[in-house]
Amino acid sequence: MVVMEEFKHFVIVKFKEGVEVEDLTKGMEKLVSEIDVVKSFEWGQDIESLDVLRQGFTHAFLMTFNKKEDFAEFQSHPNHVEFSEKFSAAIEKIVLLDFPSTLVKKPA
Amino acid sequence: MVVMEEFKHFVIVKFKEGVEVEDLTKGMEKLVSEIDVVKSFEWGQDIESLDVLRQGFTHAFLMTFNKKEDFAEFQSHPNHVEFSEKFSAAIEKIVLLDFPSTLVKKPA
Repeated sequence: MVVMEEFKHFVIVKFKEGVEVEDLTKGMEKLVSEIDVVKSFEWGQDIESLDVLRQGFTHAFLMTFNKKEDFAEFQSHPNHVEFSEKFSAAIEKIVLLDFPSTLVKKPA
Repeated sequence: MVVMEEFKHFVIVKFKEGVEVEDLTKGMEKLVSEIDVVKSFEWGQDIESLDVLRQGFTHAFLMTFNKKEDFAEFQSHPNHVEFSEKFSAAIEKIVLLDFPSTLVKKPA
């Protein structure tokens, strides 16, 4: 079954040395809990892939929205704007992808 | 609600010029449909983020497994090994992260 219905905001980062990563992940969990248009939020720290494939990136953050307009609402939300400043100051490098997703196998 | 129960395989890539991307995405859809341990598979092409944030990457692929052992089974599956060779030949750059995920908001 292929459905196209969601909009994804994917971020991978390498944090600067000395950054309290847990403060940031807790802050992000709080942020998404405050903003209703965030449909789901998952994150993790790489523990498995080879260095050459990870390329220094350590954390992934995956947000799902029902539609692009909801993502736009999230982006312009004052809490997100405020958090983004704090987050940006803590990262050494980042890649960010935003796109409508094609779901091929649906989670049970 | 925070639960930890899934294992994610997250890949972002930039394909080489001239590559038939649709052949590869169709191939990947076929691959995951053949391998039962893949719990869900989503992918997309960036259409939104700024060039400076996208950093040349264009596509994201996200696979979900119930547990790390299922991911290991997927990785060593002959169909995956065969597909990986074809896929590797088509990419200009790649970042790959494998991690147990923390799900903060659950999809409805």
